[in-house]
Amino acid sequence: MNQVMTQKPHEMLAATLAEELDAVNLLIRERMASKHAPRIPEVTAHLVEAGGKRLRPMLTLAAARMCGYEGDHHLKLAATVEFIHTATLLHDDVVDESAQRRGRPTANLLWDNKSSVLVGDYLFARSFQLMVDTGSLRVLDILANASATIAEGEVLQMTAATDLGTTEDIYLQVVRGKTAALFSAATEVGGVIAGAPEPQVQALFDYGDALGIAFQIADDLLDYQGDAAKTGKNVGDDFRERKLTLPVIKAIAQATDEERAFWERTIAKGRQQDGDLEHALELMAKYATLEATRVDAVAWAEKAKTALTALPEHPIRTMLIDLADYVVSRLH
Amino acid sequence: MNQVMTQKPHEMLAATLAEELDAVNLLIRERMASKHAPRIPEVTAHLVEAGGKRLRPMLTLAAARMCGYEGDHHLKLAATVEFIHTATLLHDDVVDESAQRRGRPTANLLWDNKSSVLVGDYLFARSFQLMVDTGSLRVLDILANASATIAEGEVLQMTAATDLGTTEDIYLQVVRGKTAALFSAATEVGGVIAGAPEPQVQALFDYGDALGIAFQIADDLLDYQGDAAKTGKNVGDDFRERKLTLPVIKAIAQATDEERAFWERTIAKGRQQDGDLEHALELMAKYATLEATRVDAVAWAEKAKTALTALPEHPIRTMLIDLADYVVSRLH
Repeated sequence: MNQVMTQKPHEMLAATLAEELDAVNLLIRERMASKHAPRIPEVTAHLVEAGGKRLRPMLTLAAARMCGYEGDHHLKLAATVEFIHTATLLHDDVVDESAQRRGRPTANLLWDNKSSVLVGDYLFARSFQLMVDTGSLRVLDILANASATIAEGEVLQMTAATDLGTTEDIYLQVVRGKTAALFSAATEVGGVIAGAPEPQVQALFDYGDALGIAFQIADDLLDYQGDAAKTGKNVGDDFRERKLTLPVIKAIAQATDEERAFWERTIAKGRQQDGDLEHALELMAKYATLEATRVDAVAWAEKAKTALTALPEHPIRTMLIDLADYVVSRLH
Repeated sequence: MNQVMTQKPHEMLAATLAEELDAVNLLIRERMASKHAPRIPEVTAHLVEAGGKRLRPMLTLAAARMCGYEGDHHLKLAATVEFIHTATLLHDDVVDESAQRRGRPTANLLWDNKSSVLVGDYLFARSFQLMVDTGSLRVLDILANASATIAEGEVLQMTAATDLGTTEDIYLQVVRGKTAALFSAATEVGGVIAGAPEPQVQALFDYGDALGIAFQIADDLLDYQGDAAKTGKNVGDDFRERKLTLPVIKAIAQATDEERAFWERTIAKGRQQDGDLEHALELMAKYATLEATRVDAVAWAEKAKTALTALPEHPIRTMLIDLADYVVSRLH
């Protein structure tokens, strides 16, 4: 069997960018350290070593490399992006009161909500220092706007979550906030720091945005069709947590009065009982919303690939194209 | 009775800076708004209108004005500082599980922990956008470092809080983090944006740092000698919450074995019973630690005043000197 053929796109990216990724990991460990508060690396090491794919920092490194960057500010930006991501995860765990992340207990169960909130704040502050170190106001502007979009998306998700009136448009805003904003900032700042021409910077933004949306839609779909052993999540977690995601939003849009009453009881009011998840899955099957959701995810992945045509040919460009395909290849 | 004579220094500052403060309040309301997430202004309005004195933004405005600044970036920086402060309060309320702030129910009781965490994050992101708008990398550097000091101080406070080995040095680090870092950043950025000469910028930093420390020591002292009606806090809240502050740290440093066992049980182990607060107050009286704490607070207030001698004479300078005196004048 050909090793190269079976290697996944993010693994190929990781191999190609191995040296730079090592430098980023070193920087992360250095900047995570706190002389005065040893609790900080304790909490973050737990997350940083929890088997994340370093997808976001890789996007920054990949974008900078594709655009011919030869400095080292992209390492700081890659670490910045990972810090923002980790901080968001820490705060999400408090918000979701989640007990598991990537198949391991979350920080707020191992320690407490306090640590999750405060260490998350510390990582935000550290990421902010790292960006300032690059001396690029444009990079700061992009990441400030991304931070606001992320936070706004999270608040919107919280208020929209159990609201049956949530439309696909609102869902898209939430998805941009919770996932795509950091993906697109990660790729965009890679281009900006490399001094790439505007159309390329725009293309990198568009790629990250579409990839992030495809990634999140796929994640939400896998919640209903995934394998807990692979995803570290149980099927129907979103249903139990009354999170309105695309497969359900599509089913509610077509619901009969009786079906609507079912969604009203289970999602809006949260009065769930045995058999509800199975019935919800039946309704999604009735309207083929899992398939329609998969089609949407694939369309966003195609959009991501199209955006990359604005960039010159490059081995990394090929891997990023494959990555977009891979993100939706887990769906069936 | 002479109105001017009885006006408090922060009220005189507010009167002098009234027009600019109005502009800052407008900016705060504008930037707090979120088209997509109405929950955000709901939560923040609660805090922003909760009768805060706008002390921190006033410090920025005062510093810029004293240094002859004629632009309008100081308004953005003043709003930035208030956003960071408000975000910190929101996260503190989650961390402390507090039920009251300034005599009103906290946001996390009125809404929930989720709102407090996420809206706090939103305010941090908004403050970040405001700073970037000033286009000053030096200002960004100062505020990034202040943010890291704040977060580190909060984590340190959490881990040190119930540790009887906490020294006055560690207490000072915590106080710098939770209070003085934002005071000193507030005054320093006012000078920087005005293009003040280095010695003046340094003096403004030193003033803010010492004022913040005096302010926090006074606050911790008032917890043991204050009047709930005035402070919105109950006497001994810190004792009940097992927070090691200066009056107790000083008493522990001189404790007999028996007294040490008392502190061990009540603070380290948190096994408190009726009469413990009264006994704690007796031990503080025995070693006169409330008085010693007051002396420390006054010394920091003097340090703040001395720093201002590096700045040219100005009516606002006089108010800032009076403010340092006022901060410790509530103590007895």
